[in-house]
Amino acid sequence: MQIAIVLYDRFTALDAVGPYETLGRLPDAETVFVAEETGPVRADTGDLALVADRTLAEVPAPGIVVVPGGPGQTPQMANTALLDWLRAADATSTWTTSVCTGSLLLAAAGLLTGRRATSHWLALDHLAHYGARPTGERVVTDGKYVTAAGVSAGIDMGLTLLGRIAGDDHARAVQLLTEYDPQPPYDAGSPDKAPAHLVAEFRGQGRFTLTQARSR
Amino acid sequence: MQIAIVLYDRFTALDAVGPYETLGRLPDAETVFVAEETGPVRADTGDLALVADRTLAEVPAPGIVVVPGGPGQTPQMANTALLDWLRAADATSTWTTSVCTGSLLLAAAGLLTGRRATSHWLALDHLAHYGARPTGERVVTDGKYVTAAGVSAGIDMGLTLLGRIAGDDHARAVQLLTEYDPQPPYDAGSPDKAPAHLVAEFRGQGRFTLTQARSR
Repeated sequence: MQIAIVLYDRFTALDAVGPYETLGRLPDAETVFVAEETGPVRADTGDLALVADRTLAEVPAPGIVVVPGGPGQTPQMANTALLDWLRAADATSTWTTSVCTGSLLLAAAGLLTGRRATSHWLALDHLAHYGARPTGERVVTDGKYVTAAGVSAGIDMGLTLLGRIAGDDHARAVQLLTEYDPQPPYDAGSPDKAPAHLVAEFRGQGRFTLTQARSR
Repeated sequence: MQIAIVLYDRFTALDAVGPYETLGRLPDAETVFVAEETGPVRADTGDLALVADRTLAEVPAPGIVVVPGGPGQTPQMANTALLDWLRAADATSTWTTSVCTGSLLLAAAGLLTGRRATSHWLALDHLAHYGARPTGERVVTDGKYVTAAGVSAGIDMGLTLLGRIAGDDHARAVQLLTEYDPQPPYDAGSPDKAPAHLVAEFRGQGRFTLTQARSR
């Protein structure tokens, strides 16, 4: 089983690394970071690059496709090479998955039409615009399509799918070894829990951009 | 403010990316991935490389030091170049931090002697051996030293320190934008919650190695 995690300019790093560190512990699987070209691919902050070890063309038929999101995904939604690869890979994949606004890329490729799916909370309306049926859940499974909410939700998605494929015991082992016993110091991780002024601030910016958090 | 995240061969990727995605959203700060040499540094699974943009020598005095852990940290505990850099950087840092077994590197550098600290649950005895006073908490602050438990605890550590430096409101904004509202599909993230046979299995292996999760 090959797990292909797709990188593109200005992706959000944790969107990719969450599933890598959980789902990537699938027994007898190979995780491959892929992009249009091999080499470093810079994340949205500009401060970090992950290496794509293989081109999209070199990995035409992965068993699992993982698409991260990020404020940089907008240009990718018109990237026909990437969308063509997603459609072709999806034709033979066992699972097609996304984290955060990665679901917008799947939707732009026409893969989520009429399906229940999720995305970053600021992108749910956008997802509907592309023909999916957004839900407010953190991890949504519709057939072979598994989509996760924003950024950190990729960890929950990775463990969920890992359990589905390799069994609950293996997923619990990975949860234990990654010591995923979350204790956030605040309770502001969703729009219904965060202070209203923060939710309004980000909704008011009209467009999802995580990097704005640094210039507040 | 410079935030230096230290990479070395066979580090655990999420240990580094958790703090990057949270603490790295500190206003007016620059996050720099550093290693002995610039270029790709391969993580413990072998399936992913992060790029070190600067050498340790090029970043001699960061305001914040972040040391990830990993099953590959053992050889680093005898790496005098790395330990010397940690000691020198710590001499002028405002905060010196670690995730998972990164605390073993800080302890090996002599920086945690007599201090309260934490590490991956399988490494707490090891941490005591190096002179620290291990606690079972997820994030431990002792003076300017902030240590986190295993792998995913770096996200909680990053948000905790972000709030301390930039204020609660900013940390909540980052939590909201990373949608960190964890909903793990299992409740097995710590040795007191996981099934006893899993805890015994990993304790019985005598040595912490996350990569073993793939070959169970």
